[in-house]
Formats: sequence, structure tokens, C-alpha cells
Amino acid sequence: MIGIKSIASYVPADGVDNYAQGAKFAKDEDFIIGKIGSAFLPRKDAAQETSDLCVEAVNALFANNPDLKRESIDALIVVTQNGDEEGLPHTAAIVQDKLGLPTHVAAFDISLGCSGYVYGIYAMKGFMEATGLKNGLLITADPYSKIVDPEDRNTTMLFGDAATATWMGEDAPWLLGKSKFGTDGSGAPHLKVSDGVFFMNGRQVFNFALLKVPAHLHELLDESDLKADEIDAFCIHQGSAAIVDAVARRFEDAPVEKFIKDMVETGNTVSSSIPLLLEKHMLDANWKRVAISGFGVGLSWGSAILYRP
Amino acid sequence: MIGIKSIASYVPADGVDNYAQGAKFAKDEDFIIGKIGSAFLPRKDAAQETSDLCVEAVNALFANNPDLKRESIDALIVVTQNGDEEGLPHTAAIVQDKLGLPTHVAAFDISLGCSGYVYGIYAMKGFMEATGLKNGLLITADPYSKIVDPEDRNTTMLFGDAATATWMGEDAPWLLGKSKFGTDGSGAPHLKVSDGVFFMNGRQVFNFALLKVPAHLHELLDESDLKADEIDAFCIHQGSAAIVDAVARRFEDAPVEKFIKDMVETGNTVSSSIPLLLEKHMLDANWKRVAISGFGVGLSWGSAILYRP
Repeated sequence: MIGIKSIASYVPADGVDNYAQGAKFAKDEDFIIGKIGSAFLPRKDAAQETSDLCVEAVNALFANNPDLKRESIDALIVVTQNGDEEGLPHTAAIVQDKLGLPTHVAAFDISLGCSGYVYGIYAMKGFMEATGLKNGLLITADPYSKIVDPEDRNTTMLFGDAATATWMGEDAPWLLGKSKFGTDGSGAPHLKVSDGVFFMNGRQVFNFALLKVPAHLHELLDESDLKADEIDAFCIHQGSAAIVDAVARRFEDAPVEKFIKDMVETGNTVSSSIPLLLEKHMLDANWKRVAISGFGVGLSWGSAILYRP
Repeated sequence: MIGIKSIASYVPADGVDNYAQGAKFAKDEDFIIGKIGSAFLPRKDAAQETSDLCVEAVNALFANNPDLKRESIDALIVVTQNGDEEGLPHTAAIVQDKLGLPTHVAAFDISLGCSGYVYGIYAMKGFMEATGLKNGLLITADPYSKIVDPEDRNTTMLFGDAATATWMGEDAPWLLGKSKFGTDGSGAPHLKVSDGVFFMNGRQVFNFALLKVPAHLHELLDESDLKADEIDAFCIHQGSAAIVDAVARRFEDAPVEKFIKDMVETGNTVSSSIPLLLEKHMLDANWKRVAISGFGVGLSWGSAILYRP
């Protein structure tokens, strides 16, 4: 059974001091840390393409896993809505070339935003199991610095650039349990790009997350025959500190501390936020079960249980 | 086991007379039919978005399959590199809303070109089997009229707009056998969009197809323990009449007539070309096994066996 073998990431060292940025919009430090959640927002170099962020994350994965050989990779998915150039060809093909991966790699992009990692791990597992492939790289890289207007107070204090790479294959320490998904395109206008610039109706997105995510997690637990106290941690999309806090409080059946909040140095990294949490908090923990939930652009949401076999 | 239950399509009635267009570039009818392969190139209305083509194809699918209920759809994938607006949100979310599908639908886009259907059916089957979903709609819609320059003689005589919808689920008349995939991003510059306009190096793409596809089909048959005479038909991407003819001749082990060529009224419809062939020639045929192969943008290729259980 295909599961998660390892996760690595790339977070640009350069970026924006969010206190300084907040001051520009008359937001104090309490707001920046308490509501936004991030003191620093990493930013890719202007010369770095999305595929370059992917390459950095995969090279970190190779460095951490000497047993993973370049020539053994046979599946590659890039989750992004801000791919290289103009999206044709797909970024995954460019990553295949830049990494020097074999040409027998099956490669494609998945277009999803903040729910993308939850969908992506099931898409990769399913595709590999349906085709008999053995070593998959699921990459997330959605640098919003390409589309966020630095003068837009609703978005410029929120998003950070990052990329992650998840090695999926057999004999994995973490397996994929039950999952649930949802889509409501009637909310598409709340998060969209027009004329190259990102727009977000923060209030609508906040309400959507608060309405959907706690209920979705409860349904997922019920369908999994699990109680909240059998979940060691909830790693949900780090949309903002306020969203994570509000979802945790609304969920009720678990102490809010079980909802991991860790975005002070990264910001909202879109589809990279959940794998960043898993890399840092889950991989080496002696946890048995983790619940994940991503939500955002689409509107789209997805929740799942990860467990040790 | 998830397989192909039904396929429907939408081909715009309006379009371009390719003889007239050929005359403009001093190309005679022998060239238009013999090399290009298409007398007519369907074109969407300027007001139609990619999601509208998807909706038309799915409505045709619903009309053909009264037993398929809107509320039973739980998975939706759109294969496109020319989605609605600027690609954020994904087109699949917009299609969910326009079709009035339930919000428990798992929906995302896959970014691939002419190889997209082969990848897409395995991505859908795998995703559904990994998540327990029951009724998937795999949609292809890549209207190149959005990006082709009508003055570019290398592309404007080739591409037609279309969309297809494939219903995937249990108890299907056609199942998915072995598959093989490939990616070579070093060839990405041969097919790409720059400043909104599509560029194709036709000679390089022709050589790539001729080099890769016949060998790939042979390897697929070997790995499937099948002889060429056990395949009833080869439904390969209809890049052009010249490409289909050349691949058929180079393959050698089957009469060229087994390579279905049917693009006179459609042109090269990108990821829709294979499902258009399957809808028209395979679904109701008393065939047992069909080989499919898609190849193009990326560069990317994929081949697979479809068979009756």
C-alpha cells in the first residue's frame, strides 16, 4: 500500500518583515501575530521560477533520503496554480528536466489551492496503485508573491512562498486512511485572479472555513469510527492564526492545543502549509493518527486521516 | 474495479472551412486532407468559456445515460491547459457550480495536453479507488482557439475545439489494463505558450511522435503479454493525418487500417481526440481490446490497453 515515506521542503531565506509591513497598514504586533500569525513572509527571488522552488524541495528530499535514487522516480505531480510561464507546458515536465529524472516518469500538474495537498496525496497514491508505479514525488509550490498586490492589505500580510516534496511509495511509516472532499464553485469569486492580480474576500473565506472545516472533521471521524481523543494532532491549513484558532474552538471535541499552529516564519503557503506541518511535527513524532484538512480556492476542501500502520 | 461506463462529447457546430484557410496559405486540398487531415475545424463561440464546453459534454452524457443522476456524481476532473479565466480557481470548481452538482464532489484540474486522456483515466480510477468514490466525470476541454494565432500556418490549420465527458465507475463495459507513461521536459520549448500565443515546432513534434509512440506501443504490448493481432484497434491521438499514418506505418506489426483515423470534421482536439475516437468507434463495437496512445505538450506521452471484462 502506497503511503508517505518522507517529506522535505524549501522555504526561501529572503522575505518580508511582517511587522514593518503591518505598520504600513497601521496594524500592530498583536494583530500581526494574533490574527495574521506570521512575523516573516518568505519570498522567492524574482529570478526563481516555480519549477526552481520544486527542484530545491526535491533536492532537500534526496539529501535526507540517500536510499531514494533519482532513477527510481517514476511518478511526479506538481500541485500549483502559479506554475512556470503561462501554464503550457505543465510545470511537472520542466521539473522532470531540471532534476534530470528519467524520461519514463509519469508527470502532470494538479490545479488546486489550499486544499491541494489533501487531494494530491490521494491522487498520487491512487495513480501509482492504478498504474503499478513505485516511487512518486508529490510536490507543492504555489508562490503567491507572483500574484499578490503588495498594496492590498487583505492579502499582502498573509502569504509566504514555499515548496514541499513528499516521497510516496511502499513500506511507508505513514498510511492514508479515510478521506472526504468538497467543492462549491458558487464561492469561486471569493478567491480568484483577475488581470494577474489575486483577490480575496477574507470575511467570506473565514466564514466558509468556520462553517465547513469543523463539521467536515467531525464527519470524517464518524466515518472512520474514531473519537477525537484518538487523534494525536490536527494539522489543518494555516490560512491565518485567526482561522486556525476559530476552527479549533468551533471543533470543541479536542483541546485547542491539538490543532498545530506553526506559521510565524512562513505565512500562508497555500498547498505547502500542511506538508510543512507534517514534516516538522509528525514525521518523527510518536503519534499514531493525525487528521489533516485543507480549504480554500474553488471553494474546495478536503480532510483525511493519516496513521501509522 | 473502476472502468469506463460511457463517453459523450460536445463539438461546436460553428468553425473554420479548412480548405478556404489552406488556400490562404497556398495549401491545396490534397495537403489539407492528406497531411493535415481535417476539412473543418470546430470553433467555440467567443462568449463560451472552457467550463461551458465541459457543461455541454456532461449534459450530453446525462442525456445518453438516464440512470446517471447528478446527485450521484462524487468526483470531477477537468483535463485542460486552457481553463477559465486565469486558472485560479480551477475550472472543475466552476463546472461543479454550473452543472449544479452536489458540494460533496471532489474536483480538480489536471494540466496536460494531448497525452491528458491517457493519464486522466488512470488518475480518476486511482483517485476513486483510493478514496472510495463511486461516480467520476473525467472531462477533457482544451480549446486551442484561445491561443492559436490565425496567421500562424504551423498551427491554425490543425486545431479544433471540443470537449468530452467520460463516466467512470463500477460495472463498466471497458476496463483499464496496463499503462505506460513518459515525460521529457527538455522538449518543452517545442510546444508552448508565450505572451498568450501558442508556438509549435511541428517538425520536432512529428519526429518525437514517430520516435516514441510505435516503440512505446510495442513495449506496452510486450509487458501486457499481448500480440498486435490481439488488439482490435489502435486509437492514438489525432495530431494530424500525417502523424497517425507515419506512426501506423512505423509500428509495422498491425495493418495500418487498425489505426483509426477520424479527424476530418474535428481537427486536432488535444486531450479530446482519443475519447472522441472511443465514443464513436469503440463503445458499441464488438471489440475486445483497444490500445490508446497520447503524446504532445511537455513533452509527455502515455499508452494503455482498454479491454472488455
